[in-house]
Amino acid sequence: MTTEPTPTLATALTWLGAARVIELGHRLEDGMPCSPSHPGFKMSLLRRHGDRVNAEGGSGANELIVTGGHVGTHVDALCHAASDGLMYDGVDAHSASVGGRFTVYGVETVAPFVSRAVLADIPALLGVGRLEPAFGITGRHLADALAGVTVNEGEVVLVRTGWPQLYDNPVAYVGTETGVPGITADAAVYLADLGVRAVCTDTIASDRLLPGRGHASLPAHKVLLVDRGVHIMEVLDFEELATTGAREMLFLALPLRITGATGSPIRPIALVGETR
Amino acid sequence: MTTEPTPTLATALTWLGAARVIELGHRLEDGMPCSPSHPGFKMSLLRRHGDRVNAEGGSGANELIVTGGHVGTHVDALCHAASDGLMYDGVDAHSASVGGRFTVYGVETVAPFVSRAVLADIPALLGVGRLEPAFGITGRHLADALAGVTVNEGEVVLVRTGWPQLYDNPVAYVGTETGVPGITADAAVYLADLGVRAVCTDTIASDRLLPGRGHASLPAHKVLLVDRGVHIMEVLDFEELATTGAREMLFLALPLRITGATGSPIRPIALVGETR
Amino acid sequence: MTTEPTPTLATALTWLGAARVIELGHRLEDGMPCSPSHPGFKMSLLRRHGDRVNAEGGSGANELIVTGGHVGTHVDALCHAASDGLMYDGVDAHSASVGGRFTVYGVETVAPFVSRAVLADIPALLGVGRLEPAFGITGRHLADALAGVTVNEGEVVLVRTGWPQLYDNPVAYVGTETGVPGITADAAVYLADLGVRAVCTDTIASDRLLPGRGHASLPAHKVLLVDRGVHIMEVLDFEELATTGAREMLFLALPLRITGATGSPIRPIALVGETR
Amino acid sequence: MTTEPTPTLATALTWLGAARVIELGHRLEDGMPCSPSHPGFKMSLLRRHGDRVNAEGGSGANELIVTGGHVGTHVDALCHAASDGLMYDGVDAHSASVGGRFTVYGVETVAPFVSRAVLADIPALLGVGRLEPAFGITGRHLADALAGVTVNEGEVVLVRTGWPQLYDNPVAYVGTETGVPGITADAAVYLADLGVRAVCTDTIASDRLLPGRGHASLPAHKVLLVDRGVHIMEVLDFEELATTGAREMLFLALPLRITGATGSPIRPIALVGETR
Repeated sequence: MTTEPTPTLATALTWLGAARVIELGHRLEDGMPCSPSHPGFKMSLLRRHGDRVNAEGGSGANELIVTGGHVGTHVDALCHAASDGLMYDGVDAHSASVGGRFTVYGVETVAPFVSRAVLADIPALLGVGRLEPAFGITGRHLADALAGVTVNEGEVVLVRTGWPQLYDNPVAYVGTETGVPGITADAAVYLADLGVRAVCTDTIASDRLLPGRGHASLPAHKVLLVDRGVHIMEVLDFEELATTGAREMLFLALPLRITGATGSPIRPIALVGETR
Repeated sequence: MTTEPTPTLATALTWLGAARVIELGHRLEDGMPCSPSHPGFKMSLLRRHGDRVNAEGGSGANELIVTGGHVGTHVDALCHAASDGLMYDGVDAHSASVGGRFTVYGVETVAPFVSRAVLADIPALLGVGRLEPAFGITGRHLADALAGVTVNEGEVVLVRTGWPQLYDNPVAYVGTETGVPGITADAAVYLADLGVRAVCTDTIASDRLLPGRGHASLPAHKVLLVDRGVHIMEVLDFEELATTGAREMLFLALPLRITGATGSPIRPIALVGETR
Repeated sequence: MTTEPTPTLATALTWLGAARVIELGHRLEDGMPCSPSHPGFKMSLLRRHGDRVNAEGGSGANELIVTGGHVGTHVDALCHAASDGLMYDGVDAHSASVGGRFTVYGVETVAPFVSRAVLADIPALLGVGRLEPAFGITGRHLADALAGVTVNEGEVVLVRTGWPQLYDNPVAYVGTETGVPGITADAAVYLADLGVRAVCTDTIASDRLLPGRGHASLPAHKVLLVDRGVHIMEVLDFEELATTGAREMLFLALPLRITGATGSPIRPIALVGETR
Repeated sequence: MTTEPTPTLATALTWLGAARVIELGHRLEDGMPCSPSHPGFKMSLLRRHGDRVNAEGGSGANELIVTGGHVGTHVDALCHAASDGLMYDGVDAHSASVGGRFTVYGVETVAPFVSRAVLADIPALLGVGRLEPAFGITGRHLADALAGVTVNEGEVVLVRTGWPQLYDNPVAYVGTETGVPGITADAAVYLADLGVRAVCTDTIASDRLLPGRGHASLPAHKVLLVDRGVHIMEVLDFEELATTGAREMLFLALPLRITGATGSPIRPIALVGETR
């Protein structure tokens, strides 16, 4: 019996260099789908080349950006949600934001995500292209979709619904009238019991949304953010990832450290490579 | 002689899990240092807990963010700079932004940074705590600081000046009157000749800034962005990294894919671990 | 024959004090109707009472506002529109905005509106509650609606459609699919020939909008802003005014002097009082 | 004895048309003086002519604006200030902003200002060009400056300090280190006792600011906004007005009706004409 040698940076780089990089999010641009609870996205070029040119002929272009912490592909900090005025671990939600930014559970406290992730492909499990509007994903669905795949504490689970197929139609994607598939409270408990650090979904709200009910009730948010301290990432896209057949991967996401904010835009990626 | 076995995800995860994660950037918040060319940073809580509570007692807090592509720790897309009206590879800078966003070299085209990086610690080389205002780093300085360290094509070089020691004093850090240390055109040529994909600095402008001259002249920007197609990252922080003695590391940065923008805020990190 | 005595401030104040003040615009708030060409309106309280309290127990609340020059009730500066690259009086539209703000015809050049205005009530003329979607108002309609009312050079004409009755339904009010009533090029020529300084309407675009065509074609804008140098005010509300039966009034609007902008939010009012 | 005839719109227009219009505010633009408590001003052209041209050759330019309710020349709504958690007339300041905007005393409740105003020219009284930094204006100063001028209930008093002479130097104008002249609590009581509806000043904070103390203590704000329900307007400019010698005038200001906001930018003007 031989001892596995300690891997080195060079070894890690070899694997990383050979892995396929897959984007798991959407671009940020005006007109993209946005929950009615949040500001949209605006980018305006403040200065274009030609506006000011220095003595050597040089010029710099730049922009003004208006956005929100939950606009586009993003992560929820734990301070995003409260139940009966309390956040995770019983922290008082009101006093935590006195001063105009959260002093507890702000997104600047969220460590980088550099971990193994596994994909729970629910449409593949059910043999459909994408889930129906308002379809509720249960713990049973997740257990079946993850059969044979280990999930370790601190890892990330990606829950695919196929909903990004509707991304170019913001009304359909946001689904205020028609509903959106998503995880139920039961699924949230199942995921939290696995000990994961974050649950990532490819919809606007992660929770299943019932037709015409909007975002009024988000029970999975309560389970994950308030009861169990598990982060949620939303508006991801697993369509390309699903085509690779990969069930486990390296997952990277680096939330911006916006002091006292409740969320941050992210650009999550998967690195898919040799697993055995 | 044995063949090195192909590394697996598990091997990579073992190295990553054992590595020390070091933040290489600053938090985003109101009042932080900002170049006069760019908007500052504002975050305002649109909704606090208690503003709206649903039937089950749940509430969500969120925010409105105003910022720029070059505010805080950020990466420059190639469309950020032009010389005599031309961007990298001779692309016309004016027509590329018609429509209100860049159609060429926008920051959404910048691939994730997942690569080896090396640290060129100039204060350590010179035996000082930090560089003097307006100190010009040359190619010679870089060669000396990187002596004995391989730099491969597509990698990243981190150039330390020690300037983040002044970060809490925005006037001193931005240095409009007093100047800021930075890379000269000569250093930029040296770095580009190494074939690196990006140059990261811990100052507001990467270029050396002369006292009272502001950002009027940025020759290293021209060399890197316009002449050679090398990205620049600014407003990083290598103070903690420098204390580790690490000269090579895994570098991660995931620019937001803001369609047509000239830059993006980033949260760069280093993973420092076993190298041999 | 007696000479009319020169009126004094006291006389003017007597009339003003006795006049009825009628709001001619809408409030600025999140969710209000907004043309797809423009950013919407966001106001977020940066600081609420209790966030910071000084030694004497005092506190100040304030806000961050994101808006546009053509959001809500507003006035168009002449630089807003161009035809074949030229603005009013043949000024080159491109070069006028080099630098990032207009150096010609910016809204800061628009003098205060303190003048007589007359109301052209088209629904009253036609005996309807409000005009049909895509109804085109002609010069003939205006002449009939203004029969018996003098219009002098430099004054303002208010053109009522009744459309504010739909204001609480932004989709209907903006009318992208269904169209919006408005002035035709013929009406614009009629108004410009009267020598008026501004034309005010109670719709999103002043121009008649055809169903499903959006804001692609705005011929009355071209006539008024580009050909004749007449300002346009949009998103006003003449419903209350119409109930008074007043056909002439004092009109006040004070555009913000935003240097180099193409429009400004305004709060126009009418003062209706003794006329003979 | 003859009866004064009831003035008509025509009479009022005659006076208005002959009056001289004097701007009492500053332009809104990037880089202008701004209190550190408030966001600055940014305007970025979202679309320039040429970005999109329709089939007939027409184009529209527009902008994105970021500002605050107390940025540039502005009016304070009564909800701006509280003392010991209470606003004017004992209204609870915390509960009034639950929901994310003020439901009591918001700036949308402020009626248009169309009234007589009088000028209290303190530098003229003291025979100086402008007041010294941190100079405290008392009730006595105001009484002397207004000697011989009637002030009626509901009118407006303009208090001149000469400070706009420093407007082009934002550091000096804001005066954080050096102080700013302004009204004391004693002056505020004097003005409130006159029954005025608003007090207008030509400084950043109306209150006298002591050197190095910033905006920590604003006793005149407390007297006017909290105790007496008198509006404050700030960052006005009476330099041109002072040169006319006019002591009474027609004053116009039309605050934007921003629902639930604590202030609004305004463009105040004076109409100076025949008074006897």
